[in-house]
Amino acid sequence: MTFERSGQRAADQLRAVRITRGYTLHAEGSVLIEFGHTRVLCTASVEEKVPPHRRGSGAGWVTAEYGMLPRATHTRSDREAARGKQSGRTQEIQRLIGRSLRAVFDLTALGERTIHLDCDVLQADGGTRTAAITGAWVAAHDAVSTLLAAGKLAASPITDAVAAVSVGMVQGEPLLDLDYREDAACDTDMNVVMTGAGGFVEVQGTAEGAAFARSELDALLNLAGQGIAELVALQRQALLEK
Amino acid sequence: MTFERSGQRAADQLRAVRITRGYTLHAEGSVLIEFGHTRVLCTASVEEKVPPHRRGSGAGWVTAEYGMLPRATHTRSDREAARGKQSGRTQEIQRLIGRSLRAVFDLTALGERTIHLDCDVLQADGGTRTAAITGAWVAAHDAVSTLLAAGKLAASPITDAVAAVSVGMVQGEPLLDLDYREDAACDTDMNVVMTGAGGFVEVQGTAEGAAFARSELDALLNLAGQGIAELVALQRQALLEK
Amino acid sequence: MTFERSGQRAADQLRAVRITRGYTLHAEGSVLIEFGHTRVLCTASVEEKVPPHRRGSGAGWVTAEYGMLPRATHTRSDREAARGKQSGRTQEIQRLIGRSLRAVFDLTALGERTIHLDCDVLQADGGTRTAAITGAWVAAHDAVSTLLAAGKLAASPITDAVAAVSVGMVQGEPLLDLDYREDAACDTDMNVVMTGAGGFVEVQGTAEGAAFARSELDALLNLAGQGIAELVALQRQALLEK
Amino acid sequence: MTFERSGQRAADQLRAVRITRGYTLHAEGSVLIEFGHTRVLCTASVEEKVPPHRRGSGAGWVTAEYGMLPRATHTRSDREAARGKQSGRTQEIQRLIGRSLRAVFDLTALGERTIHLDCDVLQADGGTRTAAITGAWVAAHDAVSTLLAAGKLAASPITDAVAAVSVGMVQGEPLLDLDYREDAACDTDMNVVMTGAGGFVEVQGTAEGAAFARSELDALLNLAGQGIAELVALQRQALLEK
Amino acid sequence: MTFERSGQRAADQLRAVRITRGYTLHAEGSVLIEFGHTRVLCTASVEEKVPPHRRGSGAGWVTAEYGMLPRATHTRSDREAARGKQSGRTQEIQRLIGRSLRAVFDLTALGERTIHLDCDVLQADGGTRTAAITGAWVAAHDAVSTLLAAGKLAASPITDAVAAVSVGMVQGEPLLDLDYREDAACDTDMNVVMTGAGGFVEVQGTAEGAAFARSELDALLNLAGQGIAELVALQRQALLEK
Amino acid sequence: MTFERSGQRAADQLRAVRITRGYTLHAEGSVLIEFGHTRVLCTASVEEKVPPHRRGSGAGWVTAEYGMLPRATHTRSDREAARGKQSGRTQEIQRLIGRSLRAVFDLTALGERTIHLDCDVLQADGGTRTAAITGAWVAAHDAVSTLLAAGKLAASPITDAVAAVSVGMVQGEPLLDLDYREDAACDTDMNVVMTGAGGFVEVQGTAEGAAFARSELDALLNLAGQGIAELVALQRQALLEK
Repeated sequence: MTFERSGQRAADQLRAVRITRGYTLHAEGSVLIEFGHTRVLCTASVEEKVPPHRRGSGAGWVTAEYGMLPRATHTRSDREAARGKQSGRTQEIQRLIGRSLRAVFDLTALGERTIHLDCDVLQADGGTRTAAITGAWVAAHDAVSTLLAAGKLAASPITDAVAAVSVGMVQGEPLLDLDYREDAACDTDMNVVMTGAGGFVEVQGTAEGAAFARSELDALLNLAGQGIAELVALQRQALLEK
Repeated sequence: MTFERSGQRAADQLRAVRITRGYTLHAEGSVLIEFGHTRVLCTASVEEKVPPHRRGSGAGWVTAEYGMLPRATHTRSDREAARGKQSGRTQEIQRLIGRSLRAVFDLTALGERTIHLDCDVLQADGGTRTAAITGAWVAAHDAVSTLLAAGKLAASPITDAVAAVSVGMVQGEPLLDLDYREDAACDTDMNVVMTGAGGFVEVQGTAEGAAFARSELDALLNLAGQGIAELVALQRQALLEK
Repeated sequence: MTFERSGQRAADQLRAVRITRGYTLHAEGSVLIEFGHTRVLCTASVEEKVPPHRRGSGAGWVTAEYGMLPRATHTRSDREAARGKQSGRTQEIQRLIGRSLRAVFDLTALGERTIHLDCDVLQADGGTRTAAITGAWVAAHDAVSTLLAAGKLAASPITDAVAAVSVGMVQGEPLLDLDYREDAACDTDMNVVMTGAGGFVEVQGTAEGAAFARSELDALLNLAGQGIAELVALQRQALLEK
Repeated sequence: MTFERSGQRAADQLRAVRITRGYTLHAEGSVLIEFGHTRVLCTASVEEKVPPHRRGSGAGWVTAEYGMLPRATHTRSDREAARGKQSGRTQEIQRLIGRSLRAVFDLTALGERTIHLDCDVLQADGGTRTAAITGAWVAAHDAVSTLLAAGKLAASPITDAVAAVSVGMVQGEPLLDLDYREDAACDTDMNVVMTGAGGFVEVQGTAEGAAFARSELDALLNLAGQGIAELVALQRQALLEK
Repeated sequence: MTFERSGQRAADQLRAVRITRGYTLHAEGSVLIEFGHTRVLCTASVEEKVPPHRRGSGAGWVTAEYGMLPRATHTRSDREAARGKQSGRTQEIQRLIGRSLRAVFDLTALGERTIHLDCDVLQADGGTRTAAITGAWVAAHDAVSTLLAAGKLAASPITDAVAAVSVGMVQGEPLLDLDYREDAACDTDMNVVMTGAGGFVEVQGTAEGAAFARSELDALLNLAGQGIAELVALQRQALLEK
Repeated sequence: MTFERSGQRAADQLRAVRITRGYTLHAEGSVLIEFGHTRVLCTASVEEKVPPHRRGSGAGWVTAEYGMLPRATHTRSDREAARGKQSGRTQEIQRLIGRSLRAVFDLTALGERTIHLDCDVLQADGGTRTAAITGAWVAAHDAVSTLLAAGKLAASPITDAVAAVSVGMVQGEPLLDLDYREDAACDTDMNVVMTGAGGFVEVQGTAEGAAFARSELDALLNLAGQGIAELVALQRQALLEK
């Protein structure tokens, strides 16, 4: 018997994805991205300097921070600012977002400035990190457009799109874009980050229960590739607006 | 010459206030409150236990935390979770929100449970703490309704409404509900918290430049009283919806 | 029936106030201030530089820190240095002291130097923050005298005196300068900071139980004004000695 | 032209692996594992209780911590204990080790006790996390043998072996078990964790420079599978000794 | 040529020592001890429970904390509570005070309660740790008297007096009870803690410049023994008062 | 009746001491020192700059850090990096190691560079701090040799050897170089640090139970002097190798 997805979603179907640009006023790029009930606010802030280890290099930097509002989740979690430190999970995710975005940035072309990507989860229903990467790219793109419009950059340092999706084996079936309930039920959970051109940037697969076979891994990678191609199309469409 | 307010607002006029209930899914109460461009997400979470210092008292607890997304502001601020501590300003504000809400709660009637109010600023344009108090009360009200509906409470422990507004002297004129530009220009800044019945819960006035006279203080308190009466009406209206 | 004050003090009477200058050796200003049993050591230290955000401005800075010895209180409290952080209450108080003192300082006239005010409570019996402000002003005055005597300043950057007192409604009666027992019993607690010229610098009123009426607020402000006038006279008298 | 490996190692050849059991006295399992110049001390400590979130479940817990001596590396790094926090990288690695080991543990069969795996890098030359996982499994096995010998367990809760290796594309060629110099030169870096039965536990691939193609990913996974099979054979051989 | 001591003090002469009991109100023991210009407030607080590692042992605990007000010193030092941690020096000193006091306590006779000794330096001029130990013993004695008077203890758990003094070689001459200027000039600095009966509790000697010879060590120990005998006499005299 | 030492060691006999130079690859000096079962890895790292408070002085700095692997001990201790701070004991020990090494360094002759000594306990059986000092000196010597060989120093800034040993009174008998079991049984515990020329650098004696007499102190110092002379001979012998 097959696992029943919410809303009669097909196994290879993304949740409803919505990308709202200009969601807040002040940031150079500000995007609310929704993967079903998961909602992440991604802002891109331009700072005209780089961290100490990059100074004088001529090259820029792209970095990310991730957070979750305490009641984004089913039960309230502690506020990290109040506890006085970010969890290992938070650090892992923000490092992943930063690496993913840098993979499609020509840092030399960016010049000695930093783009800070802040990905804050307003509502969580699985896939917050993949939504964050997908939305952060759009926010970064808007921030770059601001720099281009202001004449601070002559050409875009963005070399390609980047987007991410989760895939998982649930009761023997490969499913695309897991929500929270599906994520809790899955045996293998994989987050895949790919470029617009279809190259892999990150592949992170974890066996939750039993170890997984090469054939399962292959099926999951195929599914992710298809989902990411759709996400990249949606990113590009969103950039056409306004 | 008089200071010109944005959008030709009158000196005693509130900004456009919008209260959106049920803004996120999981919390027992979830309210987006907007005072003009200021947007604060207020959630109320019920936890069926109390902090150690209240245990066995039979009475409940109401507490608040406050945060600001890094790019809620004109220029990006450091993320408190990453720096590893909350600023003095943050702590001061969240203590104020907690005291204000407890002023209209009968903690014994609440029973041994805690209501956590999380006030997170998505976009800042002055008056975030007063918007937070005003929105948190609506969120708390919704959380109490959930408890009543579930039969966990027989009667509401909320004894009155509570709302807050900022007032300030700008170039000799008392102004209601300052936005960021006005706040930066003002000589005296006052945050006032009052109940629906018109009693004072908190009065916090600070001379930014020169000390202020009793007559100025009186004018500001009058203005605040009028503004809070309007806010309480808006809170009650919001509760009628749905 | 009226609340009975300790030592048959009248409702509008300050506790015995003692200001001892030169209490310790090393600081440029060192004052032990006593409000009855409350004893706070206030030192003013001159540092010939300013914090990073003020550098190159030509203007100086005045800042305060507050602490309480672990057994200043009825039962021992944790040492903040051992716990590894200052409480919200401590930060709130030290921010208040700093703002209050800056209100009577011409920072440009001070030049690019910092005056650090350290207010450490040796014994607590209510009103520690108001005693701290009142004593810190005397310490700051002595530090300025040192700078004048050393020829580092040509004229005093202090523009007026500043002092503070607490007032509160206890069983329907407005009382001046609450001690610990009275503070615990009061319905409304207000800390007021005023200049020698009678201008308000800070007004912080909090309803402990029921919200308070405008008439009560007015009565408390009147009482505070009278008490602060007496405190300023005592500050000036203390400066005449030696 | 092909990248030249140190010591004329073939592209699909592991470095010299040495597993020394009983390396220190006190731990229930204590293994020094060497992958070439990389040396990691892995200890397994049994504690007869579980963390709070597992209490009363009847099931046990397996957890890991990772550290690096300050001068394990080419240039000295700060001591994390002195800086007061573990880096994001450290937390990411220790979470990976913990998950990997739990994948081959029947936690119910372990009973309500914890096995703490401490993996401390004495000398680093690339591949410290994969050496740590491979060595930690041997240490955990020895700790379980101690429990079996003491009659605290009737049957081993270990369901299979687990080992890990890094693979990477260096100048277009897939290489097994990268040392530090190779790791710095590689375009794609992948850490793979597999069971003795050949199932995948974790796959973590990262494009360092250009994104990587599916064919490269496939080649790397094949290489990793072969290397891990050899490592599992070496683990089993090591357990035969003494 | 010989080093000239301040105030024509002889080489083997203590500074003026003053012990003021009952210096603050709330603590069970509260002593201001002065060694010349060094002033330390020592309070002893009784808590009717013991730290976790002592629970159920039937025995009590004696522990100490040490602090220095920011402007106790010639130039202002950072406040440890604000920096968020105690320095290594502070921890070393408070561990020493705790050990010294426990050396003259029969912890079983104390019963399952804790005596907290808080030693806070109001003014520093060398020898703060030795003054702290000497004063803390008097404060502890007063706290024990309170327990005896309240019938909580039938007999005193204090087995002897304990006091401490610093000695040092300055320009080839052994000096007793160094002040700050002498401490800065000395080659060897030794802190000695002894009981009333003349037994050694702690000996901590440090070569500041050249290593020191056994003959110097012997001379310093003799001098310390004489000084401590005088301090114990002063402690006992202080206990006779009131 | 006399206390029986492990392995029929005589009262004045050191444990088997082994000094292995070049224990790890990267550090300028790397020494594994063993005092019986106690094993400490001491590395010396040269950094071509000094801490802020030494800059521009022309002189160098020598500093030490100390750590213990979590399972170096009989039962696992918390990892200090995970707890987020170093214990008071750790700080006390690393300050002692630093002072001891600086006592035999001519910091001016070292030039503006820092030697970092990292002493990490792999296995603990008493005397870890004395082994650390003894081993750190050999590691520092090797680091200096590297600097001499590289022509960065013309002459060695090391003025003498330094070594350390613990001594203690166990059941009335003075014992040299206590192991863990002896340390737990002893009444007086003393750590002594001396130079090759026989001068005292540090003497730290602590009464664990009863206070100790001068005659006991004298006996322990004699024993320590003899033990350290042997250790210095072993250090010198170790430097002859290779």
